[in-house]
Amino acid sequence: MNQFEHGGGVENFAQELDCKVEEIIDLSSNINFIKPTINMNFNELDISAYPSYSKLYEAIASNYQVSSTQCELFNGGSSAIFSLFRFLNLLHCTIYSPAYLEYKKAATLFDYKISHINRLNILEQIVEKNSLVVFVNPSTPDGKLYDIEQLMKYWISQNCTILIDESFLDFTNGVSMSPYLKEYDKLYILKSMTKFYSSAGIRVGTLLSNEHNITELKKTEPMWKLSHFDSSYLQESLKDKSFKAISKSINAKNTIYLQKILETSSLFSEVFDSNANFILAKLKNINAEQFQDKLKKYKIMIRNCENFDFLDDSYVRIAVKSEKSLKHFNEALVSIS
Amino acid sequence: MNQFEHGGGVENFAQELDCKVEEIIDLSSNINFIKPTINMNFNELDISAYPSYSKLYEAIASNYQVSSTQCELFNGGSSAIFSLFRFLNLLHCTIYSPAYLEYKKAATLFDYKISHINRLNILEQIVEKNSLVVFVNPSTPDGKLYDIEQLMKYWISQNCTILIDESFLDFTNGVSMSPYLKEYDKLYILKSMTKFYSSAGIRVGTLLSNEHNITELKKTEPMWKLSHFDSSYLQESLKDKSFKAISKSINAKNTIYLQKILETSSLFSEVFDSNANFILAKLKNINAEQFQDKLKKYKIMIRNCENFDFLDDSYVRIAVKSEKSLKHFNEALVSIS
Repeated sequence: MNQFEHGGGVENFAQELDCKVEEIIDLSSNINFIKPTINMNFNELDISAYPSYSKLYEAIASNYQVSSTQCELFNGGSSAIFSLFRFLNLLHCTIYSPAYLEYKKAATLFDYKISHINRLNILEQIVEKNSLVVFVNPSTPDGKLYDIEQLMKYWISQNCTILIDESFLDFTNGVSMSPYLKEYDKLYILKSMTKFYSSAGIRVGTLLSNEHNITELKKTEPMWKLSHFDSSYLQESLKDKSFKAISKSINAKNTIYLQKILETSSLFSEVFDSNANFILAKLKNINAEQFQDKLKKYKIMIRNCENFDFLDDSYVRIAVKSEKSLKHFNEALVSIS
Repeated sequence: MNQFEHGGGVENFAQELDCKVEEIIDLSSNINFIKPTINMNFNELDISAYPSYSKLYEAIASNYQVSSTQCELFNGGSSAIFSLFRFLNLLHCTIYSPAYLEYKKAATLFDYKISHINRLNILEQIVEKNSLVVFVNPSTPDGKLYDIEQLMKYWISQNCTILIDESFLDFTNGVSMSPYLKEYDKLYILKSMTKFYSSAGIRVGTLLSNEHNITELKKTEPMWKLSHFDSSYLQESLKDKSFKAISKSINAKNTIYLQKILETSSLFSEVFDSNANFILAKLKNINAEQFQDKLKKYKIMIRNCENFDFLDDSYVRIAVKSEKSLKHFNEALVSIS
């Protein structure tokens, strides 16, 4: 599997440029550049014993204002997606695209017939009855936050199973679809956690649904999936009560700064509005690969969006990072154009 | 899911006894009581980025003297078992029992018809053609190391898919079946790692097979399953070159000591020979639950083996721990009997 297809891969990039990893400015990976405060000595953790996850479940459930019987934890978002697609075992799936690529991979692997709806074009399109609907909100790779209340009603009328991916919702002022869990029994909500909590090395992703669905889903899962390190790290992250607000406001500020940088540059024909910690932009005269090549001189990585449905090699995604990194990116743009 | 069914659960036990976790002598969980030396500051690990697993694969492959294309890593032994049973998708499975309970669970979950062979009785029994054979060597809960060369030939003649669980092999002088990977293309070997490396909180289990099988298996697995913490911990563990020999010799010495304790006590009618870090024993006049109750006064946990196939409530498993812990256990036995 190619790690570059999702962004990231800093080590290989540094190796290619023959420089240190620390010198790289990674604007390809949409991990929160602000980290929660962790008050824990990981060297003192007892990792001999089998882990107990009840406190972790309680902390996560409380964070999302559901009960712990409405959560199942997986080894990251991709693991959750694979398990859910396999568990549901439906025939058809509708992906509002472009979307996180693992959805298409899971749908293909588990023999779903796939319909892609180009949400950049017209949102209101016919969805097949009984389909598994996948909607990422805010979406990737553009970061648009949708009001999906009307769509929810339509999907329910079509008897669809609904999966809302809210992995970037914490960056926005948007509201979760979790109150619908009481109303509709075929709703699942994914919270990938590693993005907002700046911890892609921590493999914990959460699926929310009603208690019955979660009980059934648990039956197909092995015991002791999660690392005791990861469990402890996440519990500590969730204790940092000011992290959410600080993180959201600094990212929002820097998103506006990045938006300005991109709009000012003559390299782009279109810069998408974003509510998340990354911005999608369309290049004017060069393609994504050429742009990536030009940025190497400045040790900057960005995401080529060619492999997303309905996008092509003129689209790139830039992650929101520190003001200093974005300033450096701006200088690179000025030199390139 | 009940964690006690596998032993462990020290926290709940301590809570029941209203004492500190550190006061408990846990002889129920067969985790190596000796730990590898770890020269790493886990507080300094960068867990923001997506992990890269190539170094971990190389370290594990080298440890088991196979190539990294012959390994797939899972979030622990149970995850590996679930994934393999699902991936193989066979009709029938033969479990040499008693055996690790997750095999029966996986077989039931994925609709295998199950035959149990009572290996404590007669080893040489007819195995259905094309069956998935599961053999744990050394076995649990008794720790017997079998010479399975003849059985291997028989299973191959029956066109069986073979899964050898060698999770406790590092404690013994036994040899791995890995050389057979070249000869027989339906062989899988499980190395659970958490037992020997004293790290049940670390969720990494390894399946070995030929390159083709591993490539196919990988296709059904999500990316980035493993924690960066866990990956780093295991790599450090494997660097401790004296750990294997020291660990093996001290455990062997303490196993003999425990064997003597059990044989001397009037509480048992049978004490099984063991090559691993635990011993199975049959109680004479009381059952396992009564024995567990009596040991509470001494803050000692042991494993009730009632839920293993072909065993009943007169069987208990005692883990090999430090001489001090075993001495304390001996004193408890003397008082009880």
